[in-house]
Amino acid sequence: MSEYKFINFTVDNGVGHLELNRPEKKNAINDSLCLEIEDAFINLPDDVSVIVFSGSGPEFCSGLDLSEHKAREPFEVVKHSNMWHRVFGHITNSGIPVVAAMHGAVIGGGLELAITAHVRVTDETTFYRLPEGKHGIFVGGGASVNVAKVIGTSRMTEMMLTGRNVDAEEGYRIGLGHYVVEKGQALQKAFEIAQGIAKNSKYSNWAMTTGLRNIESMAADQGLYTESLLCGITQTSEEVKARIDAFLNRKKS
Amino acid sequence: MSEYKFINFTVDNGVGHLELNRPEKKNAINDSLCLEIEDAFINLPDDVSVIVFSGSGPEFCSGLDLSEHKAREPFEVVKHSNMWHRVFGHITNSGIPVVAAMHGAVIGGGLELAITAHVRVTDETTFYRLPEGKHGIFVGGGASVNVAKVIGTSRMTEMMLTGRNVDAEEGYRIGLGHYVVEKGQALQKAFEIAQGIAKNSKYSNWAMTTGLRNIESMAADQGLYTESLLCGITQTSEEVKARIDAFLNRKKS
Amino acid sequence: MSEYKFINFTVDNGVGHLELNRPEKKNAINDSLCLEIEDAFINLPDDVSVIVFSGSGPEFCSGLDLSEHKAREPFEVVKHSNMWHRVFGHITNSGIPVVAAMHGAVIGGGLELAITAHVRVTDETTFYRLPEGKHGIFVGGGASVNVAKVIGTSRMTEMMLTGRNVDAEEGYRIGLGHYVVEKGQALQKAFEIAQGIAKNSKYSNWAMTTGLRNIESMAADQGLYTESLLCGITQTSEEVKARIDAFLNRKKS
Amino acid sequence: MSEYKFINFTVDNGVGHLELNRPEKKNAINDSLCLEIEDAFINLPDDVSVIVFSGSGPEFCSGLDLSEHKAREPFEVVKHSNMWHRVFGHITNSGIPVVAAMHGAVIGGGLELAITAHVRVTDETTFYRLPEGKHGIFVGGGASVNVAKVIGTSRMTEMMLTGRNVDAEEGYRIGLGHYVVEKGQALQKAFEIAQGIAKNSKYSNWAMTTGLRNIESMAADQGLYTESLLCGITQTSEEVKARIDAFLNRKKS
Amino acid sequence: MSEYKFINFTVDNGVGHLELNRPEKKNAINDSLCLEIEDAFINLPDDVSVIVFSGSGPEFCSGLDLSEHKAREPFEVVKHSNMWHRVFGHITNSGIPVVAAMHGAVIGGGLELAITAHVRVTDETTFYRLPEGKHGIFVGGGASVNVAKVIGTSRMTEMMLTGRNVDAEEGYRIGLGHYVVEKGQALQKAFEIAQGIAKNSKYSNWAMTTGLRNIESMAADQGLYTESLLCGITQTSEEVKARIDAFLNRKKS
Amino acid sequence: MSEYKFINFTVDNGVGHLELNRPEKKNAINDSLCLEIEDAFINLPDDVSVIVFSGSGPEFCSGLDLSEHKAREPFEVVKHSNMWHRVFGHITNSGIPVVAAMHGAVIGGGLELAITAHVRVTDETTFYRLPEGKHGIFVGGGASVNVAKVIGTSRMTEMMLTGRNVDAEEGYRIGLGHYVVEKGQALQKAFEIAQGIAKNSKYSNWAMTTGLRNIESMAADQGLYTESLLCGITQTSEEVKARIDAFLNRKKS
Repeated sequence: MSEYKFINFTVDNGVGHLELNRPEKKNAINDSLCLEIEDAFINLPDDVSVIVFSGSGPEFCSGLDLSEHKAREPFEVVKHSNMWHRVFGHITNSGIPVVAAMHGAVIGGGLELAITAHVRVTDETTFYRLPEGKHGIFVGGGASVNVAKVIGTSRMTEMMLTGRNVDAEEGYRIGLGHYVVEKGQALQKAFEIAQGIAKNSKYSNWAMTTGLRNIESMAADQGLYTESLLCGITQTSEEVKARIDAFLNRKKS
Repeated sequence: MSEYKFINFTVDNGVGHLELNRPEKKNAINDSLCLEIEDAFINLPDDVSVIVFSGSGPEFCSGLDLSEHKAREPFEVVKHSNMWHRVFGHITNSGIPVVAAMHGAVIGGGLELAITAHVRVTDETTFYRLPEGKHGIFVGGGASVNVAKVIGTSRMTEMMLTGRNVDAEEGYRIGLGHYVVEKGQALQKAFEIAQGIAKNSKYSNWAMTTGLRNIESMAADQGLYTESLLCGITQTSEEVKARIDAFLNRKKS
Repeated sequence: MSEYKFINFTVDNGVGHLELNRPEKKNAINDSLCLEIEDAFINLPDDVSVIVFSGSGPEFCSGLDLSEHKAREPFEVVKHSNMWHRVFGHITNSGIPVVAAMHGAVIGGGLELAITAHVRVTDETTFYRLPEGKHGIFVGGGASVNVAKVIGTSRMTEMMLTGRNVDAEEGYRIGLGHYVVEKGQALQKAFEIAQGIAKNSKYSNWAMTTGLRNIESMAADQGLYTESLLCGITQTSEEVKARIDAFLNRKKS
Repeated sequence: MSEYKFINFTVDNGVGHLELNRPEKKNAINDSLCLEIEDAFINLPDDVSVIVFSGSGPEFCSGLDLSEHKAREPFEVVKHSNMWHRVFGHITNSGIPVVAAMHGAVIGGGLELAITAHVRVTDETTFYRLPEGKHGIFVGGGASVNVAKVIGTSRMTEMMLTGRNVDAEEGYRIGLGHYVVEKGQALQKAFEIAQGIAKNSKYSNWAMTTGLRNIESMAADQGLYTESLLCGITQTSEEVKARIDAFLNRKKS
Repeated sequence: MSEYKFINFTVDNGVGHLELNRPEKKNAINDSLCLEIEDAFINLPDDVSVIVFSGSGPEFCSGLDLSEHKAREPFEVVKHSNMWHRVFGHITNSGIPVVAAMHGAVIGGGLELAITAHVRVTDETTFYRLPEGKHGIFVGGGASVNVAKVIGTSRMTEMMLTGRNVDAEEGYRIGLGHYVVEKGQALQKAFEIAQGIAKNSKYSNWAMTTGLRNIESMAADQGLYTESLLCGITQTSEEVKARIDAFLNRKKS
Repeated sequence: MSEYKFINFTVDNGVGHLELNRPEKKNAINDSLCLEIEDAFINLPDDVSVIVFSGSGPEFCSGLDLSEHKAREPFEVVKHSNMWHRVFGHITNSGIPVVAAMHGAVIGGGLELAITAHVRVTDETTFYRLPEGKHGIFVGGGASVNVAKVIGTSRMTEMMLTGRNVDAEEGYRIGLGHYVVEKGQALQKAFEIAQGIAKNSKYSNWAMTTGLRNIESMAADQGLYTESLLCGITQTSEEVKARIDAFLNRKKS
């Protein structure tokens, strides 16, 4: 495993832990941090079956590091956004479930990062904001797709136009967080959930994390067709028979 | 009307009632039960204007009957899933509104069946679960399309990865159920709603149940175009003028 | 600025105010009212950066003026619906954010009108209804696309089939309203929000209101591509550097 | 096998032959003929691996039988078109390849029928026409989807607006026919092709006929995902190893 | 009818004729010419049932008038492209068929204009080119959608990357032109075709020009659904019965 | 630049040349060859503005190396196909135009590889085949998306079902090749075209190769919106003014 400067990545018993580790900057995202995340995902050890994602220090992530902002030609801005999309895509599409543990600020690019996780645990200090309009820019790390799909384009538009704070409770209600726990408990809850997910078939986990996302972008009938293929792919493994037999036996006894 | 083994289908005053009737197995779905549902929908009497769907016994439906599970070639699994899609499609797309009354377990294939209904009434004992990951399989009765469209792909992914229970209240909040009533009252509430729906124009009911679903799979501009055609189709009937005159008269008096 | 019969349109300090002004008819929508709205949007003064939309009198809008309903050939009905789509499209797609202030009845076409606004403030007297099924018709002002995208096709189908009232609180929960305030306070709240939005970069406001809506109709990967282009377009303006510098200075001090 | 009035359906050595058999009416399509086609496809014998489709008499098919045309309410017209779509869908989507042999007139509904075949052989007497505009109607058997996908929407629009004849050669060039043979030779050529197709793996034939059509309606990235699943489904069969070994042996020798 | 500076618009016996009239500039497109086209389409006389579109002088249209090019902010460029899309959209989507007569140069924006016509007649001097790459820009009048849908994205990419000439014959083969006639005969041929189209039902013409284009952007199943609605809209008119009876009588006699 | 075993990659004056170099196996594709292509594209030198792609020896590429075929679990087959998609995606989506020079056999995976190029030159010995059906498998390197988009799903289905040869001339007619030159001349022609493309603005080349492909997967209105953004991105560069001025000056003189 590489040595990283802005993140930590450790594996314990098949559960990976990727921690943003730039607390003095509220885990603000610069290019190096991005590329370290990509490196971790490209080189996942084979035995990793689930990953927990969190941020060290008082905030989960305050977003793009604006202090490193520089004027760029439009084309350079586009390429920069393409790079974020590529990196964040690794998190969503690796076929390995990712559970995020959030607390404090989840702002701008921080929300774009968090939303790539498949399960999102927050503590009650968590709050969200998309302040891009105030800076005169637009989101560039996938929020217009990924956040909008979670909270709906209408709520997303309102949230971006006003740049207002959304607290943990509202975030739960509209789907930004799937769980709200007491202050300081998000990481522990995330590990509990991750350990449960690790007990699923890895084929099922792969089908859930890649299949549902692809089906979301299809018309209904094409989605059903693809679902039937995913059924065929997953149900053939030896493992399935054993799992179902065990289940039926548990039910009997 | 045919005699069925696993379902009951009766019609009273234009309101059909399709009841899963395999209570000793918690209404678990096997192929015969599926094909009986299809038979009922293909042979709907002309005077049926709305259908209530429910399950007999202590649970609505515990899903696929795993005790009949057999190892199949991938291709056979695909064909089996295609069959479920065909049958469940009859429920959603017949042009006749369907109101489901749920209680107790609505698990796996049971949720895939329930979600095909256009209005879903639950009582407070209702709970939902998508346990496929624990068995090593994937959903195959349309959940990846139909449940995901209701609760969003993100919540769906979380629910499948964790395999956790969702209770009636949370189910109401995220849209799995449209109504929550007291224990044992779901069927009566469903009939009340069905009788209200039966008073709509049958053309409107057809346009609502088929049009909205098709428009959902279109880009926005194509959806608007199709909406305008549905307007043209429904507004021409003689019935409309009479209905609007009656409405205006009621308002005046 | 033209003189209008059914609406008022005024501008104060860059904030436009479009008021439905047919209170004796509960602001029911006829063709003239529609075309006046279109005229106002086509001729927006250059200095307008945000618009507040409201209704005079006791109700926001009771929908299509049924008393002007006439039997039409199917083709004429289609053309009429096309006209509504064209007019309402101006509201959503002008690139200028629109904040609606609602109270009382928001029924049928009234909801189709309200949903075109990017931010929707309601007071606690607000209620919604889609009664088309009772009249034997279908929605024709974009609800099957625009309302369905906000509340989901499943809830939309239930709401149309039953024709029931949705109150302000439920409307907030399912997304029809973004804010609920005390009776009579919606217009003031809408102006406060509008003034905040006016402080955003106009490029950001344009990108949020047009970009998110277009991205919603794309598959995920195409959405990301388009997001990157929007980044490139907005981030080049001189204004951005000034805004970010000001922000960083505020943070330091 | 049922006795049919308007079609013949025979099977010889795994190759089905469905022949339109209403020569005195140029094989014009009425409801009974449609429903007989559906019946044949629903009840395909298990050993049928490919089907040849042709028309008896001097013309392949002159389209909708206008002499049975009756004035219908708009809604009834819609339902009638839905029925054609359902029937023609059986031909395209059964998973069994269909080879059409055409000659003479392929007009209106006749072209809608022909285009459902996966391989289309014509003789040099074949000609096509979409005359609906002259009758004041629109296509209703799928041409606006299925013919337009083959020749492009632009050419389709020109062909419908002018209602002109397209001869066998032009039809070949724009894709309506895949082969042009000498007068009277289409049926024999179709059988030769069908016999070749029958030698493919039935899994491959199923994947080609159902997969390509579904992928056509997806965005590119979703299409690739689905392709990878189809790979997984087909490549697992025992048959594949045997086929590849045989191929490698043939190459060596 | 307004007096225009850069176009002529005349109507004779229900056939409109819109002629680009800036021959000294090879009919190069500037903003005024664009807005005159829009004005003509917004104010079409009611009796116009088909329109012929042509260019005066030695060339059809040499595209964007580069001599009026000015450096613009990215946002201004976007708005300018939006304006072209709006104007050219009137030509394609008015519901009235448009027949273009082309000769000589059809370059860049000139091809974007020509492709909006539903039927395209060329003479043998016609040639096409998309030279944007050489100028360092991209198409902005709809070519990336409208030309690509006609010739395919692959051919479009090749044509743009090389910036090469496509002559009348190749243009016919790949679909840019639907007819090639002798030098100087395109306008007369276009009028002949237009007069034929004028004899169709106006409902059919409307359905063909608006329906096929919308269906092209839908998945297959949604396209079929929309086709069935278009059937219902068009087949109800009184005119249809008369047209079909006349047709059957002609056949008998 | 790395040393490769199965490919050569050289750069001369900004033009890259990637040559398949496994002539003794007819350039059959195994995993190592795939990963070498990926490595070359990930590490493109900054000065490469266009790439020529060819195959050494008597054939362009005979496809997947079947002699390395092994029985795999369905899931492993899916992952293998995903890998091909990832690698071939680099060729299509790098933003750098790729010109393929083909000759002899372009079979199965060889066609999947060739089709990723933006411009495709063939000599008259070139022929194409998709023989997967005979082996009992399905395409897995993107043909069901990328080849189908070029030749249409209908022709693709016919070509796969029959597994027949398509020669250079037919390949040109249906779009598999954009140019056919004399035997042995394809590589030289490809270099000529590449040198022309290298003279375009790199921004335009990027927009053409990435933009058109993304727009292809959008509905028409979203495509137009994205086109307008691409206009805004490309037209801002300093280079554009200089290019247009030079062009206008050339025209004057």
